[in-house]
Amino acid sequence: MVGWRSGTAQDTVTLTLFPTPRLRKSPFYAATRRYGCDAFSVYNHMLMPVWYGDPEEEFWRLIEHVTLWDVACERQVEITGPDAARFVQLLTPRNLDTCTVGKCRYVILTAEDGGIINDPVLLRLGENHFWLSLADSDVLLWAKGVALNADMDVMIVEPDVSPLQVQGPKSNATMAALFGERIIDMAYYTLLETTLDNIPIVISRTGWSGEKGYEIFLRDGQYGDALWERVMVAGKAFNIGPACPSQIRRIEAGILAYGTDMTLTTNPFEIGMDRLVDVEQETDFIGKAALRKIKAEGIDCLLTGVEIEGDKVANEEHWPLFADGRRIGEVTSCVYSPRLEKNIGLAMVERGLAAPGRQLTVKAPHADLTAHTAVMPFFDPNKELPR
Amino acid sequence: MVGWRSGTAQDTVTLTLFPTPRLRKSPFYAATRRYGCDAFSVYNHMLMPVWYGDPEEEFWRLIEHVTLWDVACERQVEITGPDAARFVQLLTPRNLDTCTVGKCRYVILTAEDGGIINDPVLLRLGENHFWLSLADSDVLLWAKGVALNADMDVMIVEPDVSPLQVQGPKSNATMAALFGERIIDMAYYTLLETTLDNIPIVISRTGWSGEKGYEIFLRDGQYGDALWERVMVAGKAFNIGPACPSQIRRIEAGILAYGTDMTLTTNPFEIGMDRLVDVEQETDFIGKAALRKIKAEGIDCLLTGVEIEGDKVANEEHWPLFADGRRIGEVTSCVYSPRLEKNIGLAMVERGLAAPGRQLTVKAPHADLTAHTAVMPFFDPNKELPR
Repeated sequence: MVGWRSGTAQDTVTLTLFPTPRLRKSPFYAATRRYGCDAFSVYNHMLMPVWYGDPEEEFWRLIEHVTLWDVACERQVEITGPDAARFVQLLTPRNLDTCTVGKCRYVILTAEDGGIINDPVLLRLGENHFWLSLADSDVLLWAKGVALNADMDVMIVEPDVSPLQVQGPKSNATMAALFGERIIDMAYYTLLETTLDNIPIVISRTGWSGEKGYEIFLRDGQYGDALWERVMVAGKAFNIGPACPSQIRRIEAGILAYGTDMTLTTNPFEIGMDRLVDVEQETDFIGKAALRKIKAEGIDCLLTGVEIEGDKVANEEHWPLFADGRRIGEVTSCVYSPRLEKNIGLAMVERGLAAPGRQLTVKAPHADLTAHTAVMPFFDPNKELPR
Repeated sequence: MVGWRSGTAQDTVTLTLFPTPRLRKSPFYAATRRYGCDAFSVYNHMLMPVWYGDPEEEFWRLIEHVTLWDVACERQVEITGPDAARFVQLLTPRNLDTCTVGKCRYVILTAEDGGIINDPVLLRLGENHFWLSLADSDVLLWAKGVALNADMDVMIVEPDVSPLQVQGPKSNATMAALFGERIIDMAYYTLLETTLDNIPIVISRTGWSGEKGYEIFLRDGQYGDALWERVMVAGKAFNIGPACPSQIRRIEAGILAYGTDMTLTTNPFEIGMDRLVDVEQETDFIGKAALRKIKAEGIDCLLTGVEIEGDKVANEEHWPLFADGRRIGEVTSCVYSPRLEKNIGLAMVERGLAAPGRQLTVKAPHADLTAHTAVMPFFDPNKELPR
């Protein structure tokens, strides 16, 4: 069995998944199947490719060349209407004053108690035209619920928009071959609206890899196959290959995964996202009072890096962490990095134990493992992290 | 490959799914794996068993004996607080006046435009204590969003509650062996709170099979394995076996699946659920104005039964439906019933063509198929349908 747990000391659990109408298909689904993908997960009620055979091979191509990912499962929530800007600010603790038209922002959406609803990338397409490019939760329902009695004039829909990611050091050459040299000058976390022949798209300088990269938001699903093949042709000279979000690379970069490293019961301070919370801003947002209180009183636990000794690992659930025989937290994500030649991960631990170098024991299902807290990110020469 | 598409004329698509921390595990997960399940889907961000090898074998056991299902993925949204009853009524068009403590109701939750958010079973545990036992969408986020400015005093959480279903004609004997004879007298769509030794549970006379059945809501996840084994021991004399929600049986009974037969863009009248919508009630609910308008103006399409000729079928996406060469709708679900010895399904069609006996053509990916509209339910001697 090839897969991201191949080579680990653990039993590799393989389950079978069948497509059903409830699991929506991406406009790129046929292409991903044709290119050999048969490992999928489910994300926002949609089939999401997770690898084409060997995640380590995809990792090397990502950091040395360029890769194309079907991430149509990053569904968009579109917010328009006269009060759209005010409504979007209501949804997030991040101060959006400097998020002018054409810019993107990594934001946290919070509930009234400060818990995290989602951590999307926000795209501002117009004064009152926004997309939230989502992690895995029904923000469409959340936003519609919030809007009900908010006394604001907004329209909230899921548009026919499906992102691809083009990630890797040769992503700019690939994108320039498709869209011209202007693409290379796009500033990080900006967007532009354009077409490729008759295909309507939005391009953003964003991604989930820590590498140089772009997202191409397809605005009409019928062109899924055509767009996929156009990118593949353009990238051929740069050694492009199909790939999927890389757990190895994102953990190296300290990029977080919603549902794994944070949930509705986590607050932004616990994941070190203080910079995304402005409790001093005049404008109101959901969770403001709770987050102000948490900020004043401090947090009990904090997400930190962790290194795990021994054979290759990968976790299929959170693993309990112990210090001096006492339970002090859990490993939320871990993976073997073939570049760093060690196991790296993220762990939610008691705040007092989050400093690097603390010896810990991981109670993995297959064995007790020796570990220590570590500095995040593990590898980040590019500084292309969520902004 | 054994599975619900085995024996069909179509290509059987098998994808690989790996457990990850983002895909939550049921308290019964270890038991389902031990009993041989390796086919799973994802439902409410949780791994959901879909069969143990042969869905037709599970079907026969369901209709002749008794089956035990892990449906922990039917997550609960718990609503409590002084205004809980008023808040729950706000969420649904169904008039809840007669839903007294100890009763259950099949309800539709609607958005402001009348679109369907979810179709849960509502359980009333106390005057102001409710559970919504969910289909596959984040109603927790919807309800929290609605509550923000609703000016009602409610608390909304996802409790540690995980349902099992015990379904089949011998379910009452199995349940009586566990809980005593009183269980047999439980009225359909009622509940009771009890314990099994030290295991806290709620029992309801509900289910997703059209057969006599019960749900056992485990109120403390640590007892998952113990509860599963207790039910298996009690059911041994009645030929109990592990099984999963039966697509065959639920389509025979005309029971609907959220995300498949209805979505956020469907309204309750289009799925024939007029009885669940009371636009004349005095109390306000979300979608009231829109649903009143739709009721007055009529609907354009209606869900109906469909029978499909030829070899066994099963759809992995909606299939377009044509009448006299014109597109008039789509098959939302279909499956072969070994009892009825034909292919049966549900289809959303132009309202004028929804009467039984209309000849249609299904454009399935593998072939054009001859079909006709049909009366739903296809088989229902027990009348144990959602109430």
